Amino acid sequence: MMLKTHHCGQLTKAQIGETVTLNGWVQRRRDLGGVLFIDLRDRSGIVQIVFNPDFSGEALAIADRARNEYVLAVQGKVVERDAETVNKNIATGEIEIQVTEIEVMNAAKTPPFFIEDGIEVDEAVRLKYRYLDLRRPEMQRTLMLRSKASKIFRDFLDENGFIDVETPILTKSTPEGARDYLVPSRVHPGEFFALPQSPQIFKQLLMVSGLERYYQIARCFRDEDLRADRQPEFTQVDIETSFLSQDQLLELMEELIAKLMKETSNVDVELPFQRLSYADAIGKYGSDKPDLRFGMELEDVSDIVSTSGVKVFASVIENGGQVKALNAKGCGTWSRKEIDDLGPFAARYGAKGLAWIQVKDGEFKGPIVKFFTEAEIESLKSRLGAEEGDLLLFSADKKKVVADVLGNLRLKIGRQLGLIDDSKFKFAWVVDFPLLGYDEEAKRWVAEHHPFTRPKDEDVAYFDTDPGQIRAQAYDLVLNGYEVGGGSMRIYKRDVQEKMFAALGFSQEEANEKFGFLLEAFEYGTPPHGGIAFGFDRLVMLISGRTNLRETIAFPKTASATDLLTDAPGTVDDKQLEQLSIRVALKQAAAKV
Amino acid sequence: MMLKTHHCGQLTKAQIGETVTLNGWVQRRRDLGGVLFIDLRDRSGIVQIVFNPDFSGEALAIADRARNEYVLAVQGKVVERDAETVNKNIATGEIEIQVTEIEVMNAAKTPPFFIEDGIEVDEAVRLKYRYLDLRRPEMQRTLMLRSKASKIFRDFLDENGFIDVETPILTKSTPEGARDYLVPSRVHPGEFFALPQSPQIFKQLLMVSGLERYYQIARCFRDEDLRADRQPEFTQVDIETSFLSQDQLLELMEELIAKLMKETSNVDVELPFQRLSYADAIGKYGSDKPDLRFGMELEDVSDIVSTSGVKVFASVIENGGQVKALNAKGCGTWSRKEIDDLGPFAARYGAKGLAWIQVKDGEFKGPIVKFFTEAEIESLKSRLGAEEGDLLLFSADKKKVVADVLGNLRLKIGRQLGLIDDSKFKFAWVVDFPLLGYDEEAKRWVAEHHPFTRPKDEDVAYFDTDPGQIRAQAYDLVLNGYEVGGGSMRIYKRDVQEKMFAALGFSQEEANEKFGFLLEAFEYGTPPHGGIAFGFDRLVMLISGRTNLRETIAFPKTASATDLLTDAPGTVDDKQLEQLSIRVALKQAAAKV
Repeated sequence: MMLKTHHCGQLTKAQIGETVTLNGWVQRRRDLGGVLFIDLRDRSGIVQIVFNPDFSGEALAIADRARNEYVLAVQGKVVERDAETVNKNIATGEIEIQVTEIEVMNAAKTPPFFIEDGIEVDEAVRLKYRYLDLRRPEMQRTLMLRSKASKIFRDFLDENGFIDVETPILTKSTPEGARDYLVPSRVHPGEFFALPQSPQIFKQLLMVSGLERYYQIARCFRDEDLRADRQPEFTQVDIETSFLSQDQLLELMEELIAKLMKETSNVDVELPFQRLSYADAIGKYGSDKPDLRFGMELEDVSDIVSTSGVKVFASVIENGGQVKALNAKGCGTWSRKEIDDLGPFAARYGAKGLAWIQVKDGEFKGPIVKFFTEAEIESLKSRLGAEEGDLLLFSADKKKVVADVLGNLRLKIGRQLGLIDDSKFKFAWVVDFPLLGYDEEAKRWVAEHHPFTRPKDEDVAYFDTDPGQIRAQAYDLVLNGYEVGGGSMRIYKRDVQEKMFAALGFSQEEANEKFGFLLEAFEYGTPPHGGIAFGFDRLVMLISGRTNLRETIAFPKTASATDLLTDAPGTVDDKQLEQLSIRVALKQAAAKV
Repeated sequence: MMLKTHHCGQLTKAQIGETVTLNGWVQRRRDLGGVLFIDLRDRSGIVQIVFNPDFSGEALAIADRARNEYVLAVQGKVVERDAETVNKNIATGEIEIQVTEIEVMNAAKTPPFFIEDGIEVDEAVRLKYRYLDLRRPEMQRTLMLRSKASKIFRDFLDENGFIDVETPILTKSTPEGARDYLVPSRVHPGEFFALPQSPQIFKQLLMVSGLERYYQIARCFRDEDLRADRQPEFTQVDIETSFLSQDQLLELMEELIAKLMKETSNVDVELPFQRLSYADAIGKYGSDKPDLRFGMELEDVSDIVSTSGVKVFASVIENGGQVKALNAKGCGTWSRKEIDDLGPFAARYGAKGLAWIQVKDGEFKGPIVKFFTEAEIESLKSRLGAEEGDLLLFSADKKKVVADVLGNLRLKIGRQLGLIDDSKFKFAWVVDFPLLGYDEEAKRWVAEHHPFTRPKDEDVAYFDTDPGQIRAQAYDLVLNGYEVGGGSMRIYKRDVQEKMFAALGFSQEEANEKFGFLLEAFEYGTPPHGGIAFGFDRLVMLISGRTNLRETIAFPKTASATDLLTDAPGTVDDKQLEQLSIRVALKQAAAKV
């Protein structure tokens, strides 16, 4: 077997005159009247190898039978190309190999698609033949980037005293385990393990263990109805620390992210990252994961319009809602149709209507203008910085609907106007999330994150008076409109934990039943601790400029949670099920019993 | 909150005069007449902090209420200890902290065992309170060593062009999936994922993808009856390469292991590792994972004893068995009882009896001596290097039984005689494993490794004549009597694969049914490839001088595959099962239907 001495893509003029052995796949072959040119591809790139009766002898005839994706081993001399045949599109374009020996390592059937970038092939075909899809340079680049990103995380965390600890994948179903994957146990009939949705409990236990700084690039599992950007199994960079304040942790993490961006993309991100309170994020951008690559902030105009003649504005405000507006700069010239087309889009986010004003020919125009006084118009103009050619869009509704409608309109229009620079990476911390949210149906408070999220010290008093006011020591890292990480400081004091459970309406018994061993662990000297988890798949997706998580995963599942390559999940032998003491109970079958 | 400026265990005389803030756990407190000494422990070690009315003010009274494992934050000045109070047992023994401020970060109940090394506590208690067990320095050291070992693997592999690729954990049940953990799918009723016993198929697919060098520190799962040194989930360093010969791969891997040993244990291992054929390993040591820290090799004496008067020897040889012996140097002085006690031990490994000869007072003594001629005795003496004071032990049986019996006697006696130096790390490659083994019950050949293991080129011809003769390009890495890694070159040529399937008695249809998509993948240009997997838990165990895998895993399961901390596995809601379209079918319940 002739094994490679060099990598195809790394040969340059420096090797001219050397005899090299290469192994690789046939990317392309051209027969120019008895002289055969093959582009040979390996992981490192492509090089042109030449078969010519003058120097190739029998190798030419053998090479002549090779087809695309055959695996070849060749030996030959590196020579400079003639000036007119230099190919500046590839790194090795100044040289070629004059082949003297060849071995066909393996033949290949014709692949179902070309092994090259930018192919337009149904994703299902690519997934079924993933092993061929992964031969394409853009897929290899993404996998290499992912590997590199993981290494950068590890190196940084290691240098900063973090210990990589593996936590169990076969663990216990959580109290809110509706989305847990379950695993029947052969050894314990009728009992089940669960796959972790995150290592949350274990990482907190490691802090109780005094490990102080933990990390893990952890596989997590969620059996949920899938969206385009979710996978049943996903990877997070999971981090927990003791004896650090929130600020200390966020500083350390942004250093880490800055290193990641520098080393993967040669991007210098500015430190510190912007800190944006949840209230401001929602207020200005209508989103807790705002895309900060452009402005176009929302403005609350409730005070201005509450007394106006626009009935719906007044009544919304009276009922506790609000009226906000955004100024779509330069869209005042849009046709009536263009403006009307925003309506259905806004409706998707709950808008019952979309009021608008054009600034045209020096004045406000549009159906609602007549209901405003001169003074109100002046106020709007000044609040919204309205100028000639602007389009003002209004949403009047409950706070949440207004945020959703205008937040999404902002993104849509921003994109449409080309305000979003895709080469920019704009990170920010969203902080001061509410600790509790009121569940209108259940008529009780629920934890916005989880029941161990630490409230801000100065807000603890609100437990007794106004739980909705309590801000959490919780934070998300956002990048270009995506949440790429999130975490919190955790409650470590018993009295605070009891207040939290009381607010959630758990009795001590219920709390023990739900969180038993963790609460017991907390009794034995728990340090102040907190952590974060980064969504690794999504980070890699954004860094590599992809828009689909599946592109960043070697063997992903489809949106319906199947693996088209291995055809998983699948049926199994009854004998296997019997050994596991379970039986399939399909809905129809169940009805027959 | 007073957060640490320094780590307890890192304070030295260099910090004398500095004011520091420390956070940690109370390891021990002593009240010497109004002056209070506390050993404060964090991950880095222990430092003595002192509370004295002269400088501690109110802090003294607060500290006085602290008990073991309370979490304290203290501020104070680093001072030199009086010469007579210097403690040379700890790194910080030359200094202490005069505390001026204190904060009790958290209280602690009295733990069920002391947080210190070398405790004698039932393992079940340690596992239930694993978060306390992990506070003990020896457990923290092991976790840190594990983290470091993982980093060393990654750094080396990264530097050598390996790409870290995550393969699926939710995958398909394998054809021999009797030990697969299954995961019911909510989205696909009646269908199951399986947890991988190894990423074998995916790593081979990645080679088909042209990735050339892959690695992953991968979690694997096996639902088997547990032994002391097995866990239902375990970690392996999984590696696969293309375009490398077996020798090239083994060389690279031993460099890796040498680096691991140097950086974790400051041990210089000699390169290259000894290569030992499977035949020699079994022949000389009776084991395919020989402990090479001592000699005492087995010797085949069949030729000498076949004509002797020992009937059982002759008849065993006639029936295709063999007679081997080992020389237990210096054990000739053992009492008859001591020798007889070896009998039951040998019986455990299948021995029907254990013949022996003592070399005492210049002659051979023992019940079988009288059946040998003078010439036979001379031959035995010379073959076995028998000298005054030696004990010769004989096993006559089928080859496998002889190997088991004498191999285990060798280990037992070697240990008993103190021939095994526990500070030594003796690595070796066992190579040239048989490709096929004959299953006497099924009356057919079975793959000793797996059906994709590549035969040695020069042995391929034996497929048609004597399949049992075929040696595989398979190798194990052994260390001190343990297998710590293993792998093989894989078949990549269609004709060889077909010969292999034919030898295993698979029709093409059966092969397709069992290995369908992998065989299809192999049609599209598969490079020559091969790999290895290291048992990471076991390697860490051996490096850290432990004898139990559970000591190397943060949250292990017991021998009956339960997690005593989280109490997993456990029962789950019927509603959860219904959503998954399965039902528990206990054996008894099944009988009633």
